[in-house]
Amino acid sequence: MPYINIQITDEGVSQEQKVQLIRGATQLMVDVLDKDPQTTFVVIEEVNTDNWGVAGESVTTRRKKQVQQ
Amino acid sequence: MPYINIQITDEGVSQEQKVQLIRGATQLMVDVLDKDPQTTFVVIEEVNTDNWGVAGESVTTRRKKQVQQ
Amino acid sequence: MPYINIQITDEGVSQEQKVQLIRGATQLMVDVLDKDPQTTFVVIEEVNTDNWGVAGESVTTRRKKQVQQ
Amino acid sequence: MPYINIQITDEGVSQEQKVQLIRGATQLMVDVLDKDPQTTFVVIEEVNTDNWGVAGESVTTRRKKQVQQ
Amino acid sequence: MPYINIQITDEGVSQEQKVQLIRGATQLMVDVLDKDPQTTFVVIEEVNTDNWGVAGESVTTRRKKQVQQ
Amino acid sequence: MPYINIQITDEGVSQEQKVQLIRGATQLMVDVLDKDPQTTFVVIEEVNTDNWGVAGESVTTRRKKQVQQ
Repeated sequence: MPYINIQITDEGVSQEQKVQLIRGATQLMVDVLDKDPQTTFVVIEEVNTDNWGVAGESVTTRRKKQVQQ
Repeated sequence: MPYINIQITDEGVSQEQKVQLIRGATQLMVDVLDKDPQTTFVVIEEVNTDNWGVAGESVTTRRKKQVQQ
Repeated sequence: MPYINIQITDEGVSQEQKVQLIRGATQLMVDVLDKDPQTTFVVIEEVNTDNWGVAGESVTTRRKKQVQQ
Repeated sequence: MPYINIQITDEGVSQEQKVQLIRGATQLMVDVLDKDPQTTFVVIEEVNTDNWGVAGESVTTRRKKQVQQ
Repeated sequence: MPYINIQITDEGVSQEQKVQLIRGATQLMVDVLDKDPQTTFVVIEEVNTDNWGVAGESVTTRRKKQVQQ
Repeated sequence: MPYINIQITDEGVSQEQKVQLIRGATQLMVDVLDKDPQTTFVVIEEVNTDNWGVAGESVTTRRKKQVQQ
């Protein structure tokens, strides 16, 4: 009965990538824990880069610095 | 001081339904645990059907199959 | 396909109360949103009163003040 | 390695306020727990006032009552 | 910068299985989204079967029924 | 009405440190967003180092490597 919540930045994740995330996370529960996929939920949350912070600054700011380098 | 997080697929949930979810979840805390409604939070998260997986496939795909049947 | 996460303080919640929370939250999804109970998850998290804060102080401290009053 | 999830109502939070939330929450982990900011995540979730309930009613409704008073 | 939260029932998950969940979930982010593993967090939460409900009843109850069948 | 969830590894966080986390996170909401502390919740979750992964390995493993260095 696993529930997997995947939080990622909202930077153009395609529908195909979401399919792969759902399939892969579900298969991981089957392979490692022998769980029933029928009762395995995967929820993907896409978070705006303004709303995600690492090392005290937003990912928006980090991305700008990476481009400048 | 309960906090209740309700995650559902984003499929046309009306404002009236949200009112009922908030009222019902709060009342459940009062009835079962004798909690104070003043310090009971309910947060509803609506998730795109592309971003919710069950049984290794997205709800978007499941809905299409249901229509075809 | 709802997922409901109920966070409450860890203050002697009985097994019977948990049964009622699970039953009530699931029924709420059926009544308000016509969801299938088979794919409705409820997860109850019990949080130590030291770890829950309201108004800038822990629930442990709040409980002590309530007793003193 | 802290992960801090901040849920607030979606009522015009500015980019500058988000920067301050990320900076402040990260600094709190450094000051209190001596954590490494490089591995400190802050995720801000903005929730529609229709989707946030307190005391059994939505924040949308509460805001209307506050204006009327 | 993904954050993956895996909630499973607390039914004897071994340390080796946890290692595999962490490795597999991290690798999924690398394979599908080309994320940096250095900034990928995985948090596993083990939930007591009394506290997890499916179809309106606790997993504890479901497990008993499965044994009886 | 903020809700702040702080997830940290379970490595001897003292009651005094929890008090400071609760106070600091609440004050941050007051200072940055002018929120009412009375309706600000802080929930601290302490996670076993076996259950927290970074860079594809558990924090337990990372701590052992740090000691060896």
